Amino acid sequence: MIKVGIIGAKAYTAGELIRILLRHPETEIAMLAARVEAPEDPAVYHPQLRGQCGVPIEPIDCDRIAEACDFVFLTMPHMAGAEYALEMTKRGVKVADLSADFRFRNLATYEKTYGIKHIAPELNDEAPYGLVEIYRDQLKGKRLVAVPGCYVTSVLLPLAPIIAADWIDRASIISDSKSGVSGAGRTPSDTTHFCEADESMMAYKVATHRHQPEIEETLSDLAGESVQILFVPHLAPMYRGILSTIYLQLTRPMTLPEIYTVYQQRYGDEPFIRLLPPGQSPRTKDVAMTNFCDIGLMLDPRTNRLIVVSALDNLIKGASGQAVQVMNAMLGIEETAGLL
Amino acid sequence: MIKVGIIGAKAYTAGELIRILLRHPETEIAMLAARVEAPEDPAVYHPQLRGQCGVPIEPIDCDRIAEACDFVFLTMPHMAGAEYALEMTKRGVKVADLSADFRFRNLATYEKTYGIKHIAPELNDEAPYGLVEIYRDQLKGKRLVAVPGCYVTSVLLPLAPIIAADWIDRASIISDSKSGVSGAGRTPSDTTHFCEADESMMAYKVATHRHQPEIEETLSDLAGESVQILFVPHLAPMYRGILSTIYLQLTRPMTLPEIYTVYQQRYGDEPFIRLLPPGQSPRTKDVAMTNFCDIGLMLDPRTNRLIVVSALDNLIKGASGQAVQVMNAMLGIEETAGLL
Amino acid sequence: MIKVGIIGAKAYTAGELIRILLRHPETEIAMLAARVEAPEDPAVYHPQLRGQCGVPIEPIDCDRIAEACDFVFLTMPHMAGAEYALEMTKRGVKVADLSADFRFRNLATYEKTYGIKHIAPELNDEAPYGLVEIYRDQLKGKRLVAVPGCYVTSVLLPLAPIIAADWIDRASIISDSKSGVSGAGRTPSDTTHFCEADESMMAYKVATHRHQPEIEETLSDLAGESVQILFVPHLAPMYRGILSTIYLQLTRPMTLPEIYTVYQQRYGDEPFIRLLPPGQSPRTKDVAMTNFCDIGLMLDPRTNRLIVVSALDNLIKGASGQAVQVMNAMLGIEETAGLL
Amino acid sequence: MIKVGIIGAKAYTAGELIRILLRHPETEIAMLAARVEAPEDPAVYHPQLRGQCGVPIEPIDCDRIAEACDFVFLTMPHMAGAEYALEMTKRGVKVADLSADFRFRNLATYEKTYGIKHIAPELNDEAPYGLVEIYRDQLKGKRLVAVPGCYVTSVLLPLAPIIAADWIDRASIISDSKSGVSGAGRTPSDTTHFCEADESMMAYKVATHRHQPEIEETLSDLAGESVQILFVPHLAPMYRGILSTIYLQLTRPMTLPEIYTVYQQRYGDEPFIRLLPPGQSPRTKDVAMTNFCDIGLMLDPRTNRLIVVSALDNLIKGASGQAVQVMNAMLGIEETAGLL
Repeated sequence: MIKVGIIGAKAYTAGELIRILLRHPETEIAMLAARVEAPEDPAVYHPQLRGQCGVPIEPIDCDRIAEACDFVFLTMPHMAGAEYALEMTKRGVKVADLSADFRFRNLATYEKTYGIKHIAPELNDEAPYGLVEIYRDQLKGKRLVAVPGCYVTSVLLPLAPIIAADWIDRASIISDSKSGVSGAGRTPSDTTHFCEADESMMAYKVATHRHQPEIEETLSDLAGESVQILFVPHLAPMYRGILSTIYLQLTRPMTLPEIYTVYQQRYGDEPFIRLLPPGQSPRTKDVAMTNFCDIGLMLDPRTNRLIVVSALDNLIKGASGQAVQVMNAMLGIEETAGLL
Repeated sequence: MIKVGIIGAKAYTAGELIRILLRHPETEIAMLAARVEAPEDPAVYHPQLRGQCGVPIEPIDCDRIAEACDFVFLTMPHMAGAEYALEMTKRGVKVADLSADFRFRNLATYEKTYGIKHIAPELNDEAPYGLVEIYRDQLKGKRLVAVPGCYVTSVLLPLAPIIAADWIDRASIISDSKSGVSGAGRTPSDTTHFCEADESMMAYKVATHRHQPEIEETLSDLAGESVQILFVPHLAPMYRGILSTIYLQLTRPMTLPEIYTVYQQRYGDEPFIRLLPPGQSPRTKDVAMTNFCDIGLMLDPRTNRLIVVSALDNLIKGASGQAVQVMNAMLGIEETAGLL
Repeated sequence: MIKVGIIGAKAYTAGELIRILLRHPETEIAMLAARVEAPEDPAVYHPQLRGQCGVPIEPIDCDRIAEACDFVFLTMPHMAGAEYALEMTKRGVKVADLSADFRFRNLATYEKTYGIKHIAPELNDEAPYGLVEIYRDQLKGKRLVAVPGCYVTSVLLPLAPIIAADWIDRASIISDSKSGVSGAGRTPSDTTHFCEADESMMAYKVATHRHQPEIEETLSDLAGESVQILFVPHLAPMYRGILSTIYLQLTRPMTLPEIYTVYQQRYGDEPFIRLLPPGQSPRTKDVAMTNFCDIGLMLDPRTNRLIVVSALDNLIKGASGQAVQVMNAMLGIEETAGLL
Repeated sequence: MIKVGIIGAKAYTAGELIRILLRHPETEIAMLAARVEAPEDPAVYHPQLRGQCGVPIEPIDCDRIAEACDFVFLTMPHMAGAEYALEMTKRGVKVADLSADFRFRNLATYEKTYGIKHIAPELNDEAPYGLVEIYRDQLKGKRLVAVPGCYVTSVLLPLAPIIAADWIDRASIISDSKSGVSGAGRTPSDTTHFCEADESMMAYKVATHRHQPEIEETLSDLAGESVQILFVPHLAPMYRGILSTIYLQLTRPMTLPEIYTVYQQRYGDEPFIRLLPPGQSPRTKDVAMTNFCDIGLMLDPRTNRLIVVSALDNLIKGASGQAVQVMNAMLGIEETAGLL
C-alpha cells in the first residue's frame, strides 16, 4: 500500500481527496496536515467524512510527514505549494501539487500572472504538467507533477484534439465558462455568500483570470505556435461543476461527423473522457462526483463556427480526481484506480 | 382607468402581468381569460396573488372580452396569438401580443422558423416591433404591437447602440446566453423537472433556437445590412433571469471609455436601462422582479474584442414588464407607470 | 412627505426598506447612514438599487440625521439599536427599531437572553411591541416601537388567535421553523457559505434560539398566563422565507371548520394575513417579496392535534415590510401604504 | 459473481442502483428491464451513467430475466412490485422490492392505505421488512424482502433505540420531515417543476401520507403496543436528502448523556449509522451520495422534550443503498459491500 499524505487538509479539495483515497485499492492515508493548532478530527472540516477517516489533521511537520508518507498531495494556495514541494522532494517524498506553482513552463508568465518571484525554479523545470490525457508519457517516475487548474482542464481537454488542425482559426478561440461556487474555495466571502450567489449568474475577471495564461501556455505548446484565447469565467448558482462553451471559427467547411471522428480517434480509449453524440450538449449534473469530462460538439454551418462544450466536476476532474489520476500515472498504478 | 384584459391568464407571464397591473395607476383588470372549463380563482394558477385579484379566470369569449376591455394582453403560444389578435382588433380592442406571431417583418422568416403559415399577414404588416427603447416612436396610437422574446431583448438592447458602428466586425457576433428555467413556461417536462435542472448547466438548441432569426431581423434593420449571429442558449439552475455574454471583434482599436460614451449617449436617459461602470459585469440577481436591463462593457485589448454583458428578468423586462411598457407607449401613458 | 432616514443602511433589511420606501406615496428618503468611512452609493451594498436611490450612505452623524429626518429606521445589531434609539428620540425623531433591544417588556428576560445590561430601560418601558395585527392600538403616536423578529412573527401571527382558547393545551406547543439563509444577515460565515447551505437542511440552536423567549413573552401576554414553547429553527437552502409548522395538542375534539372560523373572525379583515382554505399548506414562494403572512390549518383527528403552518418573507413581513407597517401605524398613515 | 437484474430500470432509484452495483465487488449487472418499446441505452434515462453500463434497458420479459439473474431489484410503483415479485420468486429468483407492496405485515393496513387488494398475500406473509439495522437476523436466506420507504427509514432508525423505553410518552411522537424533490420520482408534475419547487418550502399530505401507517406498524412492533405518531412531510428546495426532526415528550427527566448512551449501545457498531455528539444536528449535505443515516440528539430540559434529528439521502439509504444492504444481508455477503 502506498502511504499517502495531504498538506492543506482543510481545503474542499482535500475533503474530496480523502473520500477518493479511502476507496483507492492501493493507498492508505498515512497523514493529514494543515495550518491547525492541534490535532483535529477531519470531520470538523469535512463533516461528510464523519467516522470514515481515523487519521487526524495535524499541524504541518515536514519531517514527520516525510517519515510517514511515500506520496503527498499539496492542496495549498500558490507559494505554499512551492514551499512544501521543496520540503517534500528534498526528503524523498513524491508530490502532486494542486497549487499553481508548477503549472507554467515559462517562469516569466507565472511570475507576471501571480505577481511573485518563483522560489523553486529548478523544481519547476523538472515538473511536468499533469494533464494526464495529454502528457501521460511524461508523468511516470517523476517526483513532482503540477495538477492543472479546474477551468484550465475544462478548456484544454476539449481543445487539445483540434488545436493544431489546419482547419481552425487559432486566433478565434473564445471560452465562455460557467463554474459552481466551490471553485472559490471554502473561505467565506461576499462572492460565496449564499444570498449573493443563489439565483444569480454573473461574469467576472473577464479576460483577466489567472487561468487564461495557463490555458494559453499549453495550447501554444500543442499548436506549435503562440495561441491567444479569450477566456470569460462566470459564476453559476450551483455547488459543483464547470461548463465551458468554446467557440472557434473554421477556416474551411467541415462536417460534424468529420470533426467527431477526430475526437473519437484522439479520445476513444480515454477512460475519463466521454464524447457525446454529435450535436448533443453535456450537463454538469451528469459528471458531478465523477472524474469524467463530457464533451459535446456542435456546428453552425451558417457562420462556419464550431462549438465545443465540456462539462466536468471542478472538485474532481478539475482538482482531486485528476490529482489521483496524476498519482496513478506517476506511480505506474492502473490509471483508473480509485476513480470509477 | 384603462380596462385591461389578459387572454392566456394561466401562463407564468400572465401572473407577472396581473401583479404589475394591480399596482399600475391607470389600469383596471377587467377580464382574465384562458382555456379553462369554468371560472376559476387566479390564485389556483398564481398562488402568490391569493386574495389580491378579484377577477376570475374565465373561458375565452371574445365578445365578452371585447365588451369589457379597452386593451388586451395575449400570453398564448404562437398561432393562438395571431388568432386572438385578429379577434380583438376586429372588435376594436388594442393588443400587446407576447407570442411570436407578429415579431417578424419578413413573413418568410416567421414561417420558416415556426414551420407554419401566418394566418394574419395584413395585421402583421401593421404591427410594429415593441422593443420600446429602439422603436418607441412607432408604437404610439397603434392597435397591435408584438412584444419581443426574452432572449431577444437580452441580446438586442446591448447590441443596438453599436450594431451600425464602423468599428465592429458584424460577422463576428456571438451571444452566449444563460436563462433561468421559467423561460420554458409552466408546462412540466423533463427539462423543467427540478431534479434535472437543479445544480446543472447545459447548452441547448445551439445555433438553432427560434430567437436567433428574431434577433437577426432587428439587427439587420438597425445595421442597414444583413447580420448573422451565433446564438447559444443555456439553461441555468435558477428560476428567473437571463445573462447574455456577447462577444464582438473590433475592426480597429477602441478604448473602453470611448465605447462607454457611445452607450451613455444612446441610453443615458432610458429609464429601464442601467449602464454599469466600464469593466463591471451585471448580475441577474440585481434585476430580478424589475423591468431593468443592466448592461456591462468589458474589453480585451490583447485580442481586440469587446464583451458586452446584459442581465434582465426574463419574466419582466423579457416579457410582462416590457409588455406593460409597450402598452404605456401605445396609449401615451407615462412609460414607467406601474414599472418602478 | 415624511422625511425618513435609515441607520444601518448596509444591512440586507435596509436594502429592502429602501426599495419599499421608494414606492411609498408618503415618504421621502432623507438620509442613509451606516458605519462607513465616507459617503458611498447605496448600490455598492444593494446593487439591485443601482440608479434608483440618489441619497448616499454617509457616516453616522446623529445631529445631521435628526436635522434631516422626521422618522428613522434602525437596522443595526442589538446594543446599537438602543444606542441610536436614545440619540434619535432625545432629538425628537421617531424611531422604528429592527434590533432586539426594545422587544422585551421584561428587561430581565432581555438581559438574560442577550447577556448584556440594557442601556435604555426607561425608553424600553414606553416602547410598544410592533406586531401590528396584535398591538395596533398601542402604536399610534408613539415615538419608539420595536419591530418583532422574523421567526417571532412567523410563530406569533398563527398562534395569536387561539393562544387563549380553552381548547388548546398551552404546554404542548412546538414550532418547527425553516428559514432561508438571508435570516443570518449579510456577513459572510461558514454557515452562510453557498457551499455549506446549498442543497442542505439542518436544525440549529434547538430550544436555545434567542427568538424563543421573545415568542414566549408575547404568547404569555396574550394567554394571560405563562406559556413555554419548544422552538426549533432550521436552515433551508433558499434565499428568503420562513415556514413555521406549529403543533398543538387539543384538549377537546374540534373540527377544522370550527377552528377556521376562529381565525376568520380574528384575521378576516387583516390586509396582510391570508388565510388558506382549511387543509391547505402555504408555501414560502407565494409570499416572497410581499408583506403577506399566509396561514394554513390542518387537523389530525387521530391524535387530536392541530397543525398551523405559516409562511412569510423574513426580509419583508419578518423585518422591513413590517417595519414600514409599524411606521404607518405610528404616524396614522394608511396601514398598507407602500406595501401592496 | 452474483448476476443481478433491475425491473423498473428507468426510475431514479434504478440509476442509483446501477451506480452502486457497478462498484460492488460481488455483483454483475446481468439485465435491466423496464416498460420500454425496444432496447435502450441506460444513459438515455441516467445520463450520468453514460459509457459506464454496457447492459441495455430491455422490455420486461420475465423468463429472460429469470434466466439471466440470480437476484432482482424491483423499482416499480406499488402493484407492479407484487406482480413482478410473484413472477420472479416462482422462477426461483431472489427479490428486493422497493415498492410498498410487501412492507406491511398487516394486509388490512396496506389495503386501506393504498386503496387496493393485495395480489400476493402468501408472499407477503413470508417477506420480512428490510430495515437491516433492526431486522437483520430475519433477512438471511430469504427469497423476498421489502425495502422500507425513504421517509420511513428516516423516522424509524432514530426512534428504534428508544421506542420501547419507559421514559418516553409514546403518544407524543411528532415527526416533522423535510425531503428533497427526488422523493417524488422522475415523472414531471406541477410539484416537481423547478419553478414551483425552487426557493420554496411547504408542508403536504399532513397526517395523511402513506408512510405514516408504515412507520406506525414497525414502531408498534418494536414497542410491543400500538403506537400512533403524527407525521408531517415537507418539500424542500433541494435534489436529495431527508431531514426528520422528531419530537418526543419524556415521562421523567433524563440527561442527554444518558440518552446518548442508549443510542451508543444500540448503534455503536452499525456501519451505516453515525451518531453525532450530543447537541449537534446532522445536515442532509453530509450524507448525500452515501448510505449513512446521521442522527443527532438534543434535549429541552424546560419542557422535558427530546428532539432526535436524522439525515439521510432518500435515494441511497432511503432506497437504493438500503436495497443493496438488504441484498447483502439476504445473500450473506459482507453488509457494507459496494456501499462505502
